[in-house]
Amino acid sequence: MFETAELGHSVDKETFNTEVPKLREALLNAQFDLLEAKRFPVVILIGGVDGAGKGETVNVLNEWMDPRHIVTHAFAEPSDEERERPPMWRFWRALPPKGKIGILFGSWYSAPVVERVNGQMKKGELDHVLERIGHFERMLTDDGALLLKFWFHLSKKAQKKRLSDLEDDDLTRYRVTKRDWKRFEQYDEFRSVAEKVLRETSTGSAPWSIVEGVDERYRSLTVGKAILDALTARLAETAPVEEKRTKAPKKTDRASKAPEQPAFGKKDILGELDLSKSIDKDSYEKKLERCQRDLNLLSRDDRFKNHAVVLAYEGSDAAGKGGNIRRVTAALDARRYEVHPVAAPTEDERAQPYLWRFWRDVPRLGQFSIFDRTWYGRVLVERVEGFAPEADWQRAYGEINDFEEQLDENRTIVIKLWLQISKDEQEARFSAREKTGFKRYKITEEDWRNRKKWDAYQLAVNDMVERTSTDIAPCSFARPCRSRRAGRRPTSCDCASPPP
Amino acid sequence: MFETAELGHSVDKETFNTEVPKLREALLNAQFDLLEAKRFPVVILIGGVDGAGKGETVNVLNEWMDPRHIVTHAFAEPSDEERERPPMWRFWRALPPKGKIGILFGSWYSAPVVERVNGQMKKGELDHVLERIGHFERMLTDDGALLLKFWFHLSKKAQKKRLSDLEDDDLTRYRVTKRDWKRFEQYDEFRSVAEKVLRETSTGSAPWSIVEGVDERYRSLTVGKAILDALTARLAETAPVEEKRTKAPKKTDRASKAPEQPAFGKKDILGELDLSKSIDKDSYEKKLERCQRDLNLLSRDDRFKNHAVVLAYEGSDAAGKGGNIRRVTAALDARRYEVHPVAAPTEDERAQPYLWRFWRDVPRLGQFSIFDRTWYGRVLVERVEGFAPEADWQRAYGEINDFEEQLDENRTIVIKLWLQISKDEQEARFSAREKTGFKRYKITEEDWRNRKKWDAYQLAVNDMVERTSTDIAPCSFARPCRSRRAGRRPTSCDCASPPP
Repeated sequence: MFETAELGHSVDKETFNTEVPKLREALLNAQFDLLEAKRFPVVILIGGVDGAGKGETVNVLNEWMDPRHIVTHAFAEPSDEERERPPMWRFWRALPPKGKIGILFGSWYSAPVVERVNGQMKKGELDHVLERIGHFERMLTDDGALLLKFWFHLSKKAQKKRLSDLEDDDLTRYRVTKRDWKRFEQYDEFRSVAEKVLRETSTGSAPWSIVEGVDERYRSLTVGKAILDALTARLAETAPVEEKRTKAPKKTDRASKAPEQPAFGKKDILGELDLSKSIDKDSYEKKLERCQRDLNLLSRDDRFKNHAVVLAYEGSDAAGKGGNIRRVTAALDARRYEVHPVAAPTEDERAQPYLWRFWRDVPRLGQFSIFDRTWYGRVLVERVEGFAPEADWQRAYGEINDFEEQLDENRTIVIKLWLQISKDEQEARFSAREKTGFKRYKITEEDWRNRKKWDAYQLAVNDMVERTSTDIAPCSFARPCRSRRAGRRPTSCDCASPPP
Repeated sequence: MFETAELGHSVDKETFNTEVPKLREALLNAQFDLLEAKRFPVVILIGGVDGAGKGETVNVLNEWMDPRHIVTHAFAEPSDEERERPPMWRFWRALPPKGKIGILFGSWYSAPVVERVNGQMKKGELDHVLERIGHFERMLTDDGALLLKFWFHLSKKAQKKRLSDLEDDDLTRYRVTKRDWKRFEQYDEFRSVAEKVLRETSTGSAPWSIVEGVDERYRSLTVGKAILDALTARLAETAPVEEKRTKAPKKTDRASKAPEQPAFGKKDILGELDLSKSIDKDSYEKKLERCQRDLNLLSRDDRFKNHAVVLAYEGSDAAGKGGNIRRVTAALDARRYEVHPVAAPTEDERAQPYLWRFWRDVPRLGQFSIFDRTWYGRVLVERVEGFAPEADWQRAYGEINDFEEQLDENRTIVIKLWLQISKDEQEARFSAREKTGFKRYKITEEDWRNRKKWDAYQLAVNDMVERTSTDIAPCSFARPCRSRRAGRRPTSCDCASPPP
């Protein structure tokens, strides 16, 4: 794999001096078009062996282009805020928004390669991490990102020479550390792990470019040209799919095409729920108190310092999510939780992949993050209302599973709750709410409109459970209790039985 | 000061049970109105002695209101990302956006009080910190925030009893630590420092409420009522000034009211600049190379690990800010800098005080943050175009000085550059740009329109320099050199002399 990057590629000074001004101008123009269109982000990964000119190339790119619209991130040791989240968290927070170029120096490949070379990571773990990376990159490219991956290579001989040369020069000696030489001793292992990693993560939409790192002019021109070509080609594509997402949602006819009823003979999961169950007030209050006490004790248990909780609420309108959340938070110390109500995405959020804003709110260890409406909006409201193209919500199932799996691996407990009421009960509650003076229960035209899509939502929920209720993060169902006392707000309780 | 909070206030159970449901409903309604209007944020500070029910009250507030629209932050040990920035950075990042309630548990008062009691902070330092806090809070309230400060008090006897009671109960014993008893021994010092702090930071727009912490019902009701009253009163205010800022900028006639010419006999600072200076190409290139090398070495100096640089660019349109920035970044390793181009604020940024987005980009130690256009926009474009009411840009001078002083105290070097060209030169450049194919030099209608306000800008610059060019962060002036070679982009250089 690396043979072609050991052939001694070089570019003479004259060619370089002729090519660079043209290349720069073209890069600047392409960068300007990218910025104006704000259709997609460019993510450039820089990896490879020490001394192969990675840092120099990053600097050259910043010099050749307009550094005001490039975000360069180097990933050294994670900060404590990063260490307490899943490993991909720091990369999510470094993603460039649409219209910008992000240069990720190190990226998500560094840690796995180094740890595998040092033997800290087993082969099976590496495979798992590579699969994860594959999913992540596919998400990025499916979402429209232009992802360019450059691997800088030196032959063993060339690397030795490079390190020695740097060391011999007073001005550059500081750049060669003991660690570099230690890593040089592991050259063969490094090469072998790198080859495996590159082979398995070179995909059609995000292939690796291997760059021979000996000659500075060659490597700079090669990377610059590759970026220009990919960016120009991408900008030239007409009718970009991304535009559908950055604009205000347009209703498509996809929702109406979806069958209003599940296919013949098929049972749907919400239909199977027994919505008649109830609990009497006294038992409810006793049980609630006990649950709250237990939850409080657990949240203060020393062992919880090594865990976190993500609590995800979805359900019918007026099913009582808000009240349910309040009963959970009432049991917790306010310093331990954050509640995130999910509404239409803001400008900054629309410039990122849709999971971005949920990643941002992933809790640190010892903390609860409670989501009132969640990432499942993609396969529920966005699907039913036609806000997301079918291809986007279809792939969301896998992306969501991947997200939750990463939380689980970081010892974060993922609890997903679906709160369900019947269509009649909803109507009764809407009508009741219209009569109360409680402003927060205001019923809008939209609430009534959403009811008309009841069946389409049932179907979407069914698909959602089928595809995302996993052992790691199973879906739970709860129906709010019918309270015996008139006028009292209904509340959910622990008496719900999961569907068969 | 604390005498009234040692009188044994209490509320009987019956009154409490009658009052709470009404209070909760009213709080929820007010919270809903706040959220709908999105006119201002509510910032609630909770401070005071240990054992006085601070944590319990924060929990009660979250229980009584809708926790989905409350952000509670407890400030324990700063994270490493926080430690490398000025002390106020972590509070800026915790500010609630307009429409939300932020409960800050601990807040900016904790560290100064504790450090003063422990003797880690001298009296003079405390005075300085209190002055800083005063400025910060005035900024918040001037910007429209509803700032409510609660200090929970216990007499010495009551605190002792409270700690003992907690310790005697199996369920609450965990809450009393050795540190609490150690702090109890310092009760008198704590009280005396707290009294001074409260006295000096109780202002008309942000007074302290002292709450006797013995009786749970009393303290909960007192704080809940105080929040309700303040919030209701504030929501009732008509024609809120904040609206001017959250909406799209409206042109006011303020700009035209500003004199187009400096007052009689007054010299203006830009007019005094010698714009004829130039440097020949050879010297320029030699000097540039030397400067870049020196800058590179300095950025890699070990001592720089304890500093950071904020580089702020302002100047006439087409004066060459972009090219100048590129010559600086060319000297630096791309891992060491971030360039922040400042455009119209986004939705998330408009929901915060105007300095918020600049605080967000304050560099960690060892890093450069380069701003292309800056916080001075407030007293330049926002003033001249009438985007900000006069009261807002007038107070910005002090807020800016305070911001830069905090950077300086955190060993961050603040370098502010003004790039100036003459009106004729600008016209020549605009015309030249209209003819080139370089898209990034696109001249828009707006650029031509801005030229018409040249004199108003001159005046604004003059005021800006007069009020914000300090010893800590002096303003530097540079005029781009006239290059000898035709067609070559003009560049700024180090030959500028500051005005007398």
